[in-house]
Amino acid sequence: MRDAVAQKPFADRPVAEAAGEGAFERLQALIAPELARVEAMIAERMQAADTDLIARVAAHLIGAGGKRLRPCLTLAAARLCGHDGENHIRLAAAVEFIHNATLLHDDVVDESDRRRGRPTANAVFGAKPSVLVGDFLFARSFQLMVETGSVEVLGVLSNAAAVIVEGEVLQLAAARSLAGGEDVYFKVIRGKTAALFEAAAQAGGMAAGAPAAQVAALAAYGDALGVAFQIVDDLLDYGGASAAFGKASGGDFREGKATLPVLIAHSRADEAGRAFWKRVIEGRDQREGDFETALELMRDSGALEATRARAEAFAQTAVAALAPLPAGPLREALADVAAFVLTRAR
Amino acid sequence: MRDAVAQKPFADRPVAEAAGEGAFERLQALIAPELARVEAMIAERMQAADTDLIARVAAHLIGAGGKRLRPCLTLAAARLCGHDGENHIRLAAAVEFIHNATLLHDDVVDESDRRRGRPTANAVFGAKPSVLVGDFLFARSFQLMVETGSVEVLGVLSNAAAVIVEGEVLQLAAARSLAGGEDVYFKVIRGKTAALFEAAAQAGGMAAGAPAAQVAALAAYGDALGVAFQIVDDLLDYGGASAAFGKASGGDFREGKATLPVLIAHSRADEAGRAFWKRVIEGRDQREGDFETALELMRDSGALEATRARAEAFAQTAVAALAPLPAGPLREALADVAAFVLTRAR
Repeated sequence: MRDAVAQKPFADRPVAEAAGEGAFERLQALIAPELARVEAMIAERMQAADTDLIARVAAHLIGAGGKRLRPCLTLAAARLCGHDGENHIRLAAAVEFIHNATLLHDDVVDESDRRRGRPTANAVFGAKPSVLVGDFLFARSFQLMVETGSVEVLGVLSNAAAVIVEGEVLQLAAARSLAGGEDVYFKVIRGKTAALFEAAAQAGGMAAGAPAAQVAALAAYGDALGVAFQIVDDLLDYGGASAAFGKASGGDFREGKATLPVLIAHSRADEAGRAFWKRVIEGRDQREGDFETALELMRDSGALEATRARAEAFAQTAVAALAPLPAGPLREALADVAAFVLTRAR
Repeated sequence: MRDAVAQKPFADRPVAEAAGEGAFERLQALIAPELARVEAMIAERMQAADTDLIARVAAHLIGAGGKRLRPCLTLAAARLCGHDGENHIRLAAAVEFIHNATLLHDDVVDESDRRRGRPTANAVFGAKPSVLVGDFLFARSFQLMVETGSVEVLGVLSNAAAVIVEGEVLQLAAARSLAGGEDVYFKVIRGKTAALFEAAAQAGGMAAGAPAAQVAALAAYGDALGVAFQIVDDLLDYGGASAAFGKASGGDFREGKATLPVLIAHSRADEAGRAFWKRVIEGRDQREGDFETALELMRDSGALEATRARAEAFAQTAVAALAPLPAGPLREALADVAAFVLTRAR
């Protein structure tokens, strides 16, 4: 089956969800030596002079693992474009630092107690160290970028940093509003999530000195992958497309977030349904049984399936974007990662 | 009198406190057109796409004024070294953004309600917008630096950003400890305050393409000025060297901060005095009348005068550092600003 699709023009290749199984591990295996160097650089650069508090807070979060999805994009993009130096290591570490800086700050502003199944740095060390170490990781990421000597890459990543925050603030400003609709939703997730995926992939290509068309292709891939990733994340909060309600955490619902499943269900609702969504999301007036009602409205209106279809379309866009890049195992792996993102939402 | 001192070798010129009167306004007047351009750039770049919340939060703090001391250093340094372009405007705005980003985050982690005589952004808008807009200003500052095209300047300012945070975390880790003594104290203030003064002045020289010796001179000036500034700040918390107790706010005392006046008083104390400082600072066990006792111990031991003398010595170092720079009104004004810093503590 894989051979059959591989013979089609790459841009027309369908996203086969089966190809997503284990795709991320296959990508990691292809860049294993580089990834080990990134881990070493992360461990080294989270140290600070005169105090070990920074390293302890940073290690609590970064050391807890996480998939290193964003740095893998940087490494794979750089390798795909023939990079053979040190800069993609630095940039991959910088990208992971930016990501973790935003997580540290998110956990402070959301007063979150748990992340990745463990207590947050905010819960363990308090708000002060969490805010400050987030700032430190942000500064460190720019020091790493400076070491590459590329103002161009610095431009891409500093723009991404600004866009990430704009997305988060827009989310805050538009929270609990159905009025912004999908327009605001996509602006928010392009900022808070896709911008760093895009910059991570793009920076890898730039480190390799790839032609502009390839760098643009990597940026388009990262953007679409990031959008698909966030849609799936938002879908998982309602248990995924198969409506496995036992998996639904409902955290977004309780916070009144107008995510895509909500927006689609709202747009497909009758008058009573619209009143329901207005009450629970905009009014944040939530009562016993409301979450179950929300899940039923989503399932019955096909909103969950429709949300998944949107994610799949973006994953397809990501795969198509890879067409200008050199064929081979790395491009295959990146394409399969787009399918992998979808498997999370089953 | 001014002429008499001007004829001495510049490095030996004493810091005449009288020269500090109105010195900052004289400096501002010399760079007024540039300063106006910086204000315009700050107003423009605090805007964000899609949401006005960022600009409102940023304007609440940045728009409230403040002296723009750090951007003035950048502008004066650049002009002093003959810069005649746009980059010093960008860098001055970037420096002010970094400064205000740290203030926004400080007010969140300290849960401060008032700054510069007004409610803090944290009090008005809450912690979420304050943290995020701090991040935004930080990202914006790097975008501005990228526009200068100078990786060298980016290196100086990203290092400064990391050192600022290291200083703040060291302060947190060493808070309420007398054991670190002046060694830790100076590491803290070099980080949290002097690093940005140093980078601000240095970046101005670099924007002008000044020779390495002049850039180093500007860095040394900024560092010493920043140290003097922070010592004076810490002295003011105890009412200044004249022991004008009515002016003493005691905020640092209540927080148990081991600032220089405390460290000197502690080092000069007898056994009973050392027990007092250990109780109120390290134990943070503070009772009615303790602050008055602290002020008396400081006055009687000469700790306040000694603290002021230390600030004066750094101001003197700052003036001496200016020797390699071109003579003229701008260098005079920078020298007088060192004296101005001292006048705050009378």
